[in-house]
Amino acid sequence: MAEIILYNGNFIAGESPVLPASDRGFTLGDSVFDTMLAIDGKMIFADKHFRRLSDHAAVMKIPFPYRVNELEHSASMLLERCNLLTGRAAIRTTISRGPAPRGLAPPPPRMPTLLMQAHGAPVMENSPPLQMIVARTVRRNEHSPLSRIKSSNYGDNLIALLEAQDAGAHDAVMLNTAGNAACATTSNIFALIGEKLVTPPLSDGVMPGITRASLMFRAVERSLTEEDLMRADALWLTSSVGGIRAVESLNGVKYKDVTGLAA
Amino acid sequence: MAEIILYNGNFIAGESPVLPASDRGFTLGDSVFDTMLAIDGKMIFADKHFRRLSDHAAVMKIPFPYRVNELEHSASMLLERCNLLTGRAAIRTTISRGPAPRGLAPPPPRMPTLLMQAHGAPVMENSPPLQMIVARTVRRNEHSPLSRIKSSNYGDNLIALLEAQDAGAHDAVMLNTAGNAACATTSNIFALIGEKLVTPPLSDGVMPGITRASLMFRAVERSLTEEDLMRADALWLTSSVGGIRAVESLNGVKYKDVTGLAA
Repeated sequence: MAEIILYNGNFIAGESPVLPASDRGFTLGDSVFDTMLAIDGKMIFADKHFRRLSDHAAVMKIPFPYRVNELEHSASMLLERCNLLTGRAAIRTTISRGPAPRGLAPPPPRMPTLLMQAHGAPVMENSPPLQMIVARTVRRNEHSPLSRIKSSNYGDNLIALLEAQDAGAHDAVMLNTAGNAACATTSNIFALIGEKLVTPPLSDGVMPGITRASLMFRAVERSLTEEDLMRADALWLTSSVGGIRAVESLNGVKYKDVTGLAA
Repeated sequence: MAEIILYNGNFIAGESPVLPASDRGFTLGDSVFDTMLAIDGKMIFADKHFRRLSDHAAVMKIPFPYRVNELEHSASMLLERCNLLTGRAAIRTTISRGPAPRGLAPPPPRMPTLLMQAHGAPVMENSPPLQMIVARTVRRNEHSPLSRIKSSNYGDNLIALLEAQDAGAHDAVMLNTAGNAACATTSNIFALIGEKLVTPPLSDGVMPGITRASLMFRAVERSLTEEDLMRADALWLTSSVGGIRAVESLNGVKYKDVTGLAA
């Protein structure tokens, strides 16, 4: 776990108790977050990450009284405090609506809670290819704006991951309620179909990943059924910290091509 | 906010920082909770509440190393410490998987985090009748087991409540992804149709409310469309702390009958 974290402007020990029991991020999932990669102290697409975080806070009407360059500066200082200026690090920034009285109705707007955590991050691209299943126990809700933002409401994804682990797989593809593939539990998905690189549109319940966006110049968006994924020549997962990872098999059926996809 | 709370067996000041930033209830919505009413120190259906909490923890595979009678005893002591032995109080019990390293995969099973908070609760049944809308911005995901448990993933319900507040309403009915009514943002729903009291089945994405269960001896379960709710003679919301509350209007259209429904 993180040795040092940044909590509302103060550097403190990572395992210190910081949040009161009444923090709405804890009680109600009333928070948004971002996870970003840094390599040798250099943050990758920091401006895009923090602008997206601001957009996602707006969806939940969580105040966002921060400037992107201030957040970048804070993240830099945190990397330094955590001795993460060499190698790869994952920086998580969480904005919670903060403590409030009981009840779902949000309190009047006030300063939210800002937390930043940094951890060393292994190189995932060189890990063994992934064995995946399609989750049967849970669907992704494309009828919720939360399916297109990074909020702390990760319960559905957790249910899908637990199912994958029970099946001896590494991760699960989540179908949306219409039966179209949306994503893996913490990644976007790209399928190679014929000569085309295809990824589901955001409207299918897809979080707009920044690695995903960086690949869109050579990909097309279209809805993908489970059958499309089973018949694809290759499947990749993309995420900011995990990078681009090849999927070896889906529901036990191997892909022809399990090599990398250059970024 | 609560003056005194119970945190892993210790009574502490309610606004003390207790949770580390790495608590999965905060980072990922990896927790379940219960809200129960107490009147003059007597908890209503405490055994049902705590057994349901245990069931809901099992859905998320969160360990539940507690006995129901121990939890009842803890809640009693908390009420006493909070000077809530007279009048009405709401007791919230939260079980989080607890602190863990970065990532969605849960750590090996260990002692979860147990939090209990108590607050004075007004009598809601005597409040003015509710003006409600049907939420358009978000649907309830009946394809998720979380739609049938009380986890901290309340983001969808919050989006619906924010929409209601923007529209000048008190609360919103949430439709599921198939277009059937599931619930309000923190309550179950009952409609009077002809002479029948009707409530949606759990399979429509309904949390099995304990007040709901107490009314089932004289109600029938069937799926309800928005049109069914608009044509109903009356609509009520039920919850453990709010009791049974009459809805005055839905989407601006008044119900004929806005009187109470005896428990």
